[in-house]
Amino acid sequence: MAWEIVNIIAVAAFAFSGAIVALSERYDIFGVFILGLAPPFVGGIARNIFLQIDVVHVWEQGMFLYVALGTIAVVYFFPKSWVMFWDRWNVYLDAIGLSAFAVQGAMFALEAELPFGAVVFSAIITGVGGGVARDVLAQRRPMVLHKEIYAVWAMMAGVLLALGLVDYQSTVQLYALFGAT
Amino acid sequence: MAWEIVNIIAVAAFAFSGAIVALSERYDIFGVFILGLAPPFVGGIARNIFLQIDVVHVWEQGMFLYVALGTIAVVYFFPKSWVMFWDRWNVYLDAIGLSAFAVQGAMFALEAELPFGAVVFSAIITGVGGGVARDVLAQRRPMVLHKEIYAVWAMMAGVLLALGLVDYQSTVQLYALFGAT
Amino acid sequence: MAWEIVNIIAVAAFAFSGAIVALSERYDIFGVFILGLAPPFVGGIARNIFLQIDVVHVWEQGMFLYVALGTIAVVYFFPKSWVMFWDRWNVYLDAIGLSAFAVQGAMFALEAELPFGAVVFSAIITGVGGGVARDVLAQRRPMVLHKEIYAVWAMMAGVLLALGLVDYQSTVQLYALFGAT
Repeated sequence: MAWEIVNIIAVAAFAFSGAIVALSERYDIFGVFILGLAPPFVGGIARNIFLQIDVVHVWEQGMFLYVALGTIAVVYFFPKSWVMFWDRWNVYLDAIGLSAFAVQGAMFALEAELPFGAVVFSAIITGVGGGVARDVLAQRRPMVLHKEIYAVWAMMAGVLLALGLVDYQSTVQLYALFGAT
Repeated sequence: MAWEIVNIIAVAAFAFSGAIVALSERYDIFGVFILGLAPPFVGGIARNIFLQIDVVHVWEQGMFLYVALGTIAVVYFFPKSWVMFWDRWNVYLDAIGLSAFAVQGAMFALEAELPFGAVVFSAIITGVGGGVARDVLAQRRPMVLHKEIYAVWAMMAGVLLALGLVDYQSTVQLYALFGAT
Repeated sequence: MAWEIVNIIAVAAFAFSGAIVALSERYDIFGVFILGLAPPFVGGIARNIFLQIDVVHVWEQGMFLYVALGTIAVVYFFPKSWVMFWDRWNVYLDAIGLSAFAVQGAMFALEAELPFGAVVFSAIITGVGGGVARDVLAQRRPMVLHKEIYAVWAMMAGVLLALGLVDYQSTVQLYALFGAT
């Protein structure tokens, strides 16, 4: 439940970052919604396609979808100066989403009892996929590949979970991990 | 049958736009064919992968493939000045392909009796996927996200169909919808 | 067995080219590893997803994965001047990887007894996919689409195999094909 709240914050942060990027690239309303939805959902969908398990579709994600749509709608009416301001802080929003999703990806693979390599892979794809999709659609260089050494920590989180050093059922440790990244 | 003709026009328009973009980016013959084939076929393939249904492969699409290849071959021998001319009008070619494919995507999801969200999603992916793939491969900012408010109408078409406001078996209404977008 | 060695060389060449591109774009260590792993593995994974057969995951590819990771690690410690030097020769590294993977993709489809169109498609996706993924992630125009007329030869290799002009069990002919491309 409490972990659910972290997830909602991560979805909102990712949707926020996507909408801001779209606005600062002067995309239209359609572009703002597509770029806002890409970061929180593409990572998970890509992971499921790669792992060839059932895709949980965007329209089945209930509350997460409404949180994302609500965030994008709010950002869309931001004045221009706010957009410029937030675009500079985007790397932090991205780091929040990335680390929460990387941990979620690792947990997902662990619960499916996949091997070590799959846990690392799942953590990377789930965490990184959305932000990369946003940056490619905005024709920017993917932030995670040159600006965010954070990403390495997200990967580490996956590795730690995979090694069983962190008990993934212990919520306290999850928060510690999340705080550290 | 008559709807088939609209589809063939859409495939030709999309193949035309891809080949023009490749030529104006000075891509070689291989690039021209890849960028010409991407717009008409990537949207449908991406939709099928996302929805995890059987992919109808490019080489199984018979007449559509020949129409696309023929269009690309013709464009390849255009003089340079024609290419510059058409590149400016590309947004209209894109709008033709986009709206026809969005309607086709929505019909596809309706026939498979998928829920409302899936119909909207299918209309967007089928209509937008190809053009985005073309623009990413050409390292341009995806036209649909910043220039084409048309895309929103294509999405609307999907929504209308999903709501059952338009009877998708009525060919007349399909043309009206297509004309409107 | 001897064909295995060609494959290892191709994996190393592709990983090398990805790491060099990442370094010359000043990506961080995470970016270098992602861009190094993308060329040798994305093509095969994309082909398997498109053909809807079981994906052989990156972490299951044993020796090939170690070869790629080793190559990337070595490149990461190159002095800056070497990187600039190799970036200019990248087109040759790319051609090695591309032609070996295109032949491998065609053989793969032939062994699965897929139709002619699928063999051509498989050769193109397997050969071209990785390099395109690398260039999109680096925000460069895909090299294969404008610089490498080699790619057409790789495609030809697939076509030749598909037509049965070359017996794919004859290793000698495979080398000849590989040498020619």
